[in-house]
Amino acid sequence: MQLQLSTWPEVEEYLKISSGIVIPIGSTEQHGPNGLIGTDAICAEAISKGVGDETEALVGPTINVGMALHHTSFPGTVSLRPSTLLALVQDYITFLTKAGFTKFFFINGHGGNMATVKAAFAQTYTHLSELQIPNSDRVQCRLANWFLCSSVRNLAKELYGDREGSHATASEVAVTQFLYPEAIKNVELDAQLPPQDKIYGPDDFRRRHPDGRMGSDPSMATPEHGERFYKAAVKELSQAYREFLQAE
Amino acid sequence: MQLQLSTWPEVEEYLKISSGIVIPIGSTEQHGPNGLIGTDAICAEAISKGVGDETEALVGPTINVGMALHHTSFPGTVSLRPSTLLALVQDYITFLTKAGFTKFFFINGHGGNMATVKAAFAQTYTHLSELQIPNSDRVQCRLANWFLCSSVRNLAKELYGDREGSHATASEVAVTQFLYPEAIKNVELDAQLPPQDKIYGPDDFRRRHPDGRMGSDPSMATPEHGERFYKAAVKELSQAYREFLQAE
Amino acid sequence: MQLQLSTWPEVEEYLKISSGIVIPIGSTEQHGPNGLIGTDAICAEAISKGVGDETEALVGPTINVGMALHHTSFPGTVSLRPSTLLALVQDYITFLTKAGFTKFFFINGHGGNMATVKAAFAQTYTHLSELQIPNSDRVQCRLANWFLCSSVRNLAKELYGDREGSHATASEVAVTQFLYPEAIKNVELDAQLPPQDKIYGPDDFRRRHPDGRMGSDPSMATPEHGERFYKAAVKELSQAYREFLQAE
Amino acid sequence: MQLQLSTWPEVEEYLKISSGIVIPIGSTEQHGPNGLIGTDAICAEAISKGVGDETEALVGPTINVGMALHHTSFPGTVSLRPSTLLALVQDYITFLTKAGFTKFFFINGHGGNMATVKAAFAQTYTHLSELQIPNSDRVQCRLANWFLCSSVRNLAKELYGDREGSHATASEVAVTQFLYPEAIKNVELDAQLPPQDKIYGPDDFRRRHPDGRMGSDPSMATPEHGERFYKAAVKELSQAYREFLQAE
Amino acid sequence: MQLQLSTWPEVEEYLKISSGIVIPIGSTEQHGPNGLIGTDAICAEAISKGVGDETEALVGPTINVGMALHHTSFPGTVSLRPSTLLALVQDYITFLTKAGFTKFFFINGHGGNMATVKAAFAQTYTHLSELQIPNSDRVQCRLANWFLCSSVRNLAKELYGDREGSHATASEVAVTQFLYPEAIKNVELDAQLPPQDKIYGPDDFRRRHPDGRMGSDPSMATPEHGERFYKAAVKELSQAYREFLQAE
Amino acid sequence: MQLQLSTWPEVEEYLKISSGIVIPIGSTEQHGPNGLIGTDAICAEAISKGVGDETEALVGPTINVGMALHHTSFPGTVSLRPSTLLALVQDYITFLTKAGFTKFFFINGHGGNMATVKAAFAQTYTHLSELQIPNSDRVQCRLANWFLCSSVRNLAKELYGDREGSHATASEVAVTQFLYPEAIKNVELDAQLPPQDKIYGPDDFRRRHPDGRMGSDPSMATPEHGERFYKAAVKELSQAYREFLQAE
Repeated sequence: MQLQLSTWPEVEEYLKISSGIVIPIGSTEQHGPNGLIGTDAICAEAISKGVGDETEALVGPTINVGMALHHTSFPGTVSLRPSTLLALVQDYITFLTKAGFTKFFFINGHGGNMATVKAAFAQTYTHLSELQIPNSDRVQCRLANWFLCSSVRNLAKELYGDREGSHATASEVAVTQFLYPEAIKNVELDAQLPPQDKIYGPDDFRRRHPDGRMGSDPSMATPEHGERFYKAAVKELSQAYREFLQAE
Repeated sequence: MQLQLSTWPEVEEYLKISSGIVIPIGSTEQHGPNGLIGTDAICAEAISKGVGDETEALVGPTINVGMALHHTSFPGTVSLRPSTLLALVQDYITFLTKAGFTKFFFINGHGGNMATVKAAFAQTYTHLSELQIPNSDRVQCRLANWFLCSSVRNLAKELYGDREGSHATASEVAVTQFLYPEAIKNVELDAQLPPQDKIYGPDDFRRRHPDGRMGSDPSMATPEHGERFYKAAVKELSQAYREFLQAE
Repeated sequence: MQLQLSTWPEVEEYLKISSGIVIPIGSTEQHGPNGLIGTDAICAEAISKGVGDETEALVGPTINVGMALHHTSFPGTVSLRPSTLLALVQDYITFLTKAGFTKFFFINGHGGNMATVKAAFAQTYTHLSELQIPNSDRVQCRLANWFLCSSVRNLAKELYGDREGSHATASEVAVTQFLYPEAIKNVELDAQLPPQDKIYGPDDFRRRHPDGRMGSDPSMATPEHGERFYKAAVKELSQAYREFLQAE
Repeated sequence: MQLQLSTWPEVEEYLKISSGIVIPIGSTEQHGPNGLIGTDAICAEAISKGVGDETEALVGPTINVGMALHHTSFPGTVSLRPSTLLALVQDYITFLTKAGFTKFFFINGHGGNMATVKAAFAQTYTHLSELQIPNSDRVQCRLANWFLCSSVRNLAKELYGDREGSHATASEVAVTQFLYPEAIKNVELDAQLPPQDKIYGPDDFRRRHPDGRMGSDPSMATPEHGERFYKAAVKELSQAYREFLQAE
Repeated sequence: MQLQLSTWPEVEEYLKISSGIVIPIGSTEQHGPNGLIGTDAICAEAISKGVGDETEALVGPTINVGMALHHTSFPGTVSLRPSTLLALVQDYITFLTKAGFTKFFFINGHGGNMATVKAAFAQTYTHLSELQIPNSDRVQCRLANWFLCSSVRNLAKELYGDREGSHATASEVAVTQFLYPEAIKNVELDAQLPPQDKIYGPDDFRRRHPDGRMGSDPSMATPEHGERFYKAAVKELSQAYREFLQAE
Repeated sequence: MQLQLSTWPEVEEYLKISSGIVIPIGSTEQHGPNGLIGTDAICAEAISKGVGDETEALVGPTINVGMALHHTSFPGTVSLRPSTLLALVQDYITFLTKAGFTKFFFINGHGGNMATVKAAFAQTYTHLSELQIPNSDRVQCRLANWFLCSSVRNLAKELYGDREGSHATASEVAVTQFLYPEAIKNVELDAQLPPQDKIYGPDDFRRRHPDGRMGSDPSMATPEHGERFYKAAVKELSQAYREFLQAE
């Protein structure tokens, strides 16, 4: 059940049965020579909808621009500053809590979001308590990173070994190929694996990773792989969401 | 050309030809008993993609949660505070300007966004100038509201007369029906037109507009109407975008 | 009744009779070769006092610096950033609401303030509700732009036709001449009407409007015109204020 | 020379001769049973204009609402939070510095502003330096409190001895009586001097100072006294302003 | 009793007896050729612990970086912007108030902190009242500057006359020599007293005070002097703290 | 070499040899019935000084209050909100970068700081680049958590097995016992291990962890253990710091 395709009376009904919501969060950032700029948002959104279908969870609108400052020396990247993303996540949770939601399950497609979103959770718990919203002390937020699912990691290891990498990975490119076969790019990649270096500022990032990839060989990706990753993530996160709902 | 489905080298190529970008902005808010919560984001996104197809403009990711504080007494509404949305719009424009974009054409689906987005434009021009980004003094932002297109207003008048209303309007519901026929709701609406009152705070809004509509009769909406609205908006805004690009 | 010339016990008495207050808001910005930098604040203040005399409304202190970022390439302009003005308006309303005011009637002299002030109203309604101030859900804010009064627009059309313009207009210059005859400037204006172009950043603004005017011929202004504009605005806004007080 | 009554070309001329500006800052807050709510703004503005006349300084628009949080339990008080006032002062100085001003002489009428304004000065110096505005490292700000002028303190001691007090003082009430004789209030004051206690939060303040005064007997004030205070302050601050302009 | 060396059950017990806390606040900034960068934090911390021992007060962790923007042109200086320090002080007081503290006694070692900390107190009182924390209207904050103690000033006058100065003073250097004899620096100082000029921006400060001192001759400092200053400050502030606790 | 005990000319000399600095960051929060409230700051500071001695690194002042919102239902906890800590870290790095530092090695004693500090690093890189500080694109920040050192983890496993826990751990309590033997608390702990649950808001945290510990048995801690942990951490982090300095 997608929030965007529902009416408010339908949400009112839903809240009688469940106070959980799935919120996809991705990024709009360079993903190397053949990876889509929307990769992180696309994957998070599709997997969230899969989890929604599987668990009858309500799925909120995708946060499609996240914290990608280190990619901003490549054209096409859009980013929020951490202070902006922190305020945004706090706003989302605050207004949904006022409506009665208490279980927030963010499905994340971008490692760079993790720090800021966790900081936002901490700040929001205190904010809600200061607003004295009923049940605010029962609010629970979870950040579930699809790319860290053990089933996903195992599959990546099996398919790509040490050529999976850590940015513009073969697995995430595969998922986008499965979802948008019409947007598969025919680009020759450097045969040599790019470095998988530390991340500092945006200019430094581009110096270290001239084509944008970090240790990955996304030329190995196929739509069929993508479907397997997608299904593995949906299955594992659906289970995680159910447990989250039931946990005290 | 969608930013989300492009690679950064493709954006680099695009920037050699054009420095314009279309950014859809909507909202996630109650739209009465039969209107979708995502109506404003759905319409802005679809029309933006239409304009992108028509004009070969790059279309950025949709800002799907906007300024909807006055709707937050209805479950399912998500909103940013104006201060958050202001920072968000500034971040979008700033990082895209660094990459070389100078013509920002926001296609908006929600009246409640207008004030904050305009304030954000003003603040961002000065911000860019203070950052001394090259060409920042050539940056131009435009807020184009599809529902205010004269072709759209004329069609709404022709089809619905004074039953179009100003929130959860027949025309916007029609567009979502055209785009998502599977999400058409069978809901009986009160025959009497709801009031079209002033807007103050969220509790006050719900008191005045108990089912969420403002002066509208969206039971008149049909998918066929929606298609006509969609096409009218795409045509008129494509023309507006072309003129915007060429204007000094 | 001016707040600045009252004592707190007098305000306490006033609040037993009325919870309305008029707040003038203007700007401190260039107004072309012969327009006063304080034009917008001067007009808003004088008209507000006129409305206060007519309706026995309490009139608060003038917000004399507003959102004028686009004029900051001309010396003498002072501006708040939108984020500052947003906080300022929120502070004003919050503390006056704590004292018991619920009807805020801002009389505005500057188009550039409109977006930010409206955004501030929206943010403040939610802020007040979160602070749980008694009666905060009854708070209503109105932005009344004197230069958009129909009586004012008609008179400007009658007196100046298409030479009224949109910034440093003949009508607002006339009002300041009526109020401050000692400050009438003898400046020869370019006979040709200046352009009435789009507004972007401050440098761009000065490029397009070298002498600061937008489409106006303020050499047509006279103190006698000014008095007529002043009286028309006071009359129309007094009526609007009375209706605002009585509206539910 | 008042900024509000000048044109931008006049300011451009002025800047060829001087880069100094006088900015009055006051407050809108309770001043006891017979003191005007606008006392601090009224005094600062009048004395600033006097200094402007005496020294041919440009006088900017009055900041008439300041930091008066501790008075907000009395109706009629309006206040900015320190964070808002800090941003406001930074905005004023920043945009005037861009135009070429470097010597900012704030004439202050309210003790409660001092901390925040000084903090704002410090923050602004660094802000200007980070913006790399030409001459920004020559910017100097001074906070001149008229009520702390030695000539004023001596006169108050002579006229009122220990009945001058520290809020709603006899001297400041006298100045407003001189300036606005039509607003002199006939109010019987408690013969016993009110306490002159520490200042904490707003509720605490009202508990300690039930009628709003701190240690003062403003029933001793007369318009004639007011004129003497006004003249003393103008003289002493004119001298201070001249020295400030000449100081390296 | 030091907060850092206590457990939460010990604090719980303490709160049954007292709701007071001493918070040292200093700075990390250049102190001339022979003064320690940590001088202000070191002095404030040691004197606070002395007061804690004397009065059985709980002593919180030292705020060792304060508002030192004007010293940032000298290497080694660290500073918070006033807006950051304001938020920090508000956070400290807010969370300690939630735990039951109501009497906050800041022992300060740096003149540059005074404005911002006082502004923070004012803002926090209103913030606490808006959060509706029980007893928040009983919260009292005091800023006690050890270097302004009359016993300290008298001793400095006696020992150094007009060579005490106002930054990198002989007295504060003496206190650090008493506390850290191993860190006494053997540095030849210019025999001529450095200027004691106005403070503006960081670059200007270094131009006026090339070696960092303001009017001081810290070559006169000795560890023995330091002990006397330390004891004087502890004695005077212990008395001040006791009175603060008992005051209504 | 401690920054607090150095002079600015000494720092100037240091910068000719190294542009690295070690910054300890901890927290002031409950650590169960026998753990010190300052545990995280104490450990981070001592280990940082050890690393400084070992590597001749400059060690900055300790950030002794961090992000501990989830502990604020226990008395004695002080916390910054993430937005405040983010601004604080940005200020520290910005002003030190202006002085010439480029390698920032934060030694952290508190898991709750990690998210916010990482977010602050990302934001600061972009901030520095926007300020156009020379060498700002060479700035590198590292967050080194002493409790995650492999030598520390191995030792904890060896000494405590699964009774180490994750908050108020045996190892960190041991380090404080080594450093402050006079502050060892004789408190009987519940023999049963406390739960090691998820972390949400402050009230929820106290409900789940009534005595403050998470899965730990700090009654096993001894000063001798503490010394071993301390030495292991200093050794491992000294090596890490050296590599960090040399890394490109």
